[in-house]
Amino acid sequence: MSTQLYNLAQQLQQAIRSSNDFQQLKHAYEEVRRDETAYRMFTYFRDLQMQLHQKQLMGTSISPEEVEQAQNAMTQAQRNEKLANLMEIEQRMSMVMADIQQIAMKPLEELYRSFAE
Amino acid sequence: MSTQLYNLAQQLQQAIRSSNDFQQLKHAYEEVRRDETAYRMFTYFRDLQMQLHQKQLMGTSISPEEVEQAQNAMTQAQRNEKLANLMEIEQRMSMVMADIQQIAMKPLEELYRSFAE
Ligand SMILES: [Ca+2]
Ligand SMILES: [Ca+2]
Repeated sequence: MSTQLYNLAQQLQQAIRSSNDFQQLKHAYEEVRRDETAYRMFTYFRDLQMQLHQKQLMGTSISPEEVEQAQNAMTQAQRNEKLANLMEIEQRMSMVMADIQQIAMKPLEELYRSFAE
Repeated sequence: MSTQLYNLAQQLQQAIRSSNDFQQLKHAYEEVRRDETAYRMFTYFRDLQMQLHQKQLMGTSISPEEVEQAQNAMTQAQRNEKLANLMEIEQRMSMVMADIQQIAMKPLEELYRSFAE
């Protein structure tokens, strides 16, 4: 990677770290971590999601019971104020990262598109 | 997204577009496009890869014949000088983009890691 690209990537990292969205995310995580109930629900939900994701990657079928179990865990998590808050901020942060990714990938995307025509 | 993040993402886009790797990639694509044989092999190989990727996403099994077909297409592509060159530069560009992505994602990765401990 060129020095210019490296420096810009580092500046971007620093700007992400200092951004309101990231600071809010960090705070929301700490709030959940400090709350035993919220934290237990969070780890349960995350483990469940990871298991389902693993199955998808492996091409293993997911049973209706497993889908229901995940939906129930999600509903429970949404009812917990601190978890609902964390998930909302996580989603916002994901969108910011996706936007950055899209802007950075644009030259490549344009090149591929012009080539596919 | 904050103005600062947006501006940095735009600067990164511009730096990627001006980078040697991207300019070389663009040139390698044009070389392939100008060569009927190379371009036909390229589109055949790309379509084959997309079909296999679709099957993976759908959880559809891929037959040994399909794997062999893809491997043969890859071997043929590697024997074509212009395609081999394009694939080499594509791989280098992918690594640059992955490095940028990793640097930008570091604050989030650190946050998730500290939370999982
Ligand atoms: Ca407590
Ligand atoms: Ca020709």
